[in-house]
Amino acid sequence: MNIAVIGLGLIGGSLLRALAAAGHRVLGYDADPAVRGTARTAAAQAPAAQRWQITASVGEAARGSTLVVLAVPLPGVPGVLDDLVDAGYTGLITDVTSVKGPVRDLVAERFRRAATPLAGYVGGHPMAGREQSGFEAADPYLFTQCAWVLCLETETALTDWLDLAALITSLGARVVPTTAGEHDQAVARISHVPHLLAAALAASIDGNPLAGTLAAGSFRDGTRVAATRPELTAAMCGGNAEAVTTALDEIMTSLESAGTLLSRKDPGRSLVDWLRTGHEVRAAWPALAGDSTELPAKADVLGRLGRVGGWIIDVAEDRRTVTAVRPAV
Amino acid sequence: MNIAVIGLGLIGGSLLRALAAAGHRVLGYDADPAVRGTARTAAAQAPAAQRWQITASVGEAARGSTLVVLAVPLPGVPGVLDDLVDAGYTGLITDVTSVKGPVRDLVAERFRRAATPLAGYVGGHPMAGREQSGFEAADPYLFTQCAWVLCLETETALTDWLDLAALITSLGARVVPTTAGEHDQAVARISHVPHLLAAALAASIDGNPLAGTLAAGSFRDGTRVAATRPELTAAMCGGNAEAVTTALDEIMTSLESAGTLLSRKDPGRSLVDWLRTGHEVRAAWPALAGDSTELPAKADVLGRLGRVGGWIIDVAEDRRTVTAVRPAV
Repeated sequence: MNIAVIGLGLIGGSLLRALAAAGHRVLGYDADPAVRGTARTAAAQAPAAQRWQITASVGEAARGSTLVVLAVPLPGVPGVLDDLVDAGYTGLITDVTSVKGPVRDLVAERFRRAATPLAGYVGGHPMAGREQSGFEAADPYLFTQCAWVLCLETETALTDWLDLAALITSLGARVVPTTAGEHDQAVARISHVPHLLAAALAASIDGNPLAGTLAAGSFRDGTRVAATRPELTAAMCGGNAEAVTTALDEIMTSLESAGTLLSRKDPGRSLVDWLRTGHEVRAAWPALAGDSTELPAKADVLGRLGRVGGWIIDVAEDRRTVTAVRPAV
Repeated sequence: MNIAVIGLGLIGGSLLRALAAAGHRVLGYDADPAVRGTARTAAAQAPAAQRWQITASVGEAARGSTLVVLAVPLPGVPGVLDDLVDAGYTGLITDVTSVKGPVRDLVAERFRRAATPLAGYVGGHPMAGREQSGFEAADPYLFTQCAWVLCLETETALTDWLDLAALITSLGARVVPTTAGEHDQAVARISHVPHLLAAALAASIDGNPLAGTLAAGSFRDGTRVAATRPELTAAMCGGNAEAVTTALDEIMTSLESAGTLLSRKDPGRSLVDWLRTGHEVRAAWPALAGDSTELPAKADVLGRLGRVGGWIIDVAEDRRTVTAVRPAV
């Protein structure tokens, strides 16, 4: 395939490397000239058959490509979409942004104004991250075994979805079919709210150096993601504000119950019951993979697979079936 | 010194090994005969000069000892104290329990009834833990560089405190002078509330297998301590209910602010400010150690040292000075 990757940070850079290593013709672009220079130098050092090219603009990367991957942060998405509209791009678009509803809405809005119709958009989100960021940290094996969300909405063309799923499973990732709404609710709980809890917990020992000296493993792990730059966390939570607010409210209600149980005379007993749900969920996580099965490549089947925590590891060449894995029970 | 260690789990067992390796005469006891058997077998395999003895009762261990270390969980403390009273023990007592106010009160209450006066009690808490528990996981090096709280209350005999501090620093630990009240407030924030947040977070994806499949690092770390047995967490939080309630209320108020900021039209901006405190605290944690200095071994000096996050690494033989380290600024 001819693929353009726009944005060459950790995810975009890793994808550029992974796709080029898999034999695709890959064009990369980053708004930062220094990053483009680094990526160009790195290409020259790659084996000849696995080299990518770096272009001077979004339009140049998109021209001749049948797939454009938006790998810029959410605030950068509208500008790149405008560039694609201006370049008359009509191919498939996907993205790797951590919220899916807002990107879906942006794509719809920008391309509604375009003279030429867009071939298709499928929202994506690889659940891959690292402490480091930037092209220097890029790794073609970053996506091995990682869960990669691909949104399958009622308006999504199934063929587009399956083409992308085939491409992404070929990189070793587990493609999880879901919707933008389900995705955004889930990541609020597994990623965004954890960042807020970590920040509140870390702030609770502000001006208390004794507590800092005594702090060990519980504090270290419970606050780790508070080390993320506040601007990034705020953008991430702000971009998913509705789902984050819902999830945060639920957790606050639950913590209020814990507080009530604690203030009783015999707090040990019922607090145990309150703790048990979280304990059981955590003890069963991550779920073990069950046996793989062939499934018909139909939207309703795929949607159900995602909702039970399943994923796809292969798409048949004829696009009629997928190889799916469900969590073992 | 002649030392009795009561309770031979991870902490008690590690202490037994560390003290014996340092050349002390150590007697150990555990209520579980199987644990006593294991500890007795392990003693036979230690070098002759570093062997501990296992006794058949608390009283037998205490007899001839000048220090008794209570290394049993909080619910086991009253029974051991009763045994010590019955045995007519009049030496020094310390403990390693994770809450300090309740143990202090229990010691005062039990020995008030005793015919013979108690020589002294100094509350202690080594901030050392492991995923594993039990005597099998015991490690004489567990306390190397670990913060070890020793409570210095207005009623504490400074000589007792310094003797214990000398013993504990000789095991490679950092002795942190504080009070039961300050300790309990601090551990509520760095240990107990993190367990409640982890449980609430894990429970928030109950019945949501999609979220479980997408969950990665933020969820893994934010929920790690939810894997602790609910009974242990409930006992820990319940034993420190007042301080945990205070800390939890503070964090809930803070999270409410975050929720308010999120629901505004332009959430990114002020949420950044809200996130900044936690970010700065976490980025500066753990504090680097500053240069070591000699300090007079006086209660007020030691109390101030603990409150600024400092610790003691040595006690002079004449007990007139200590070698202290403060966090580097």
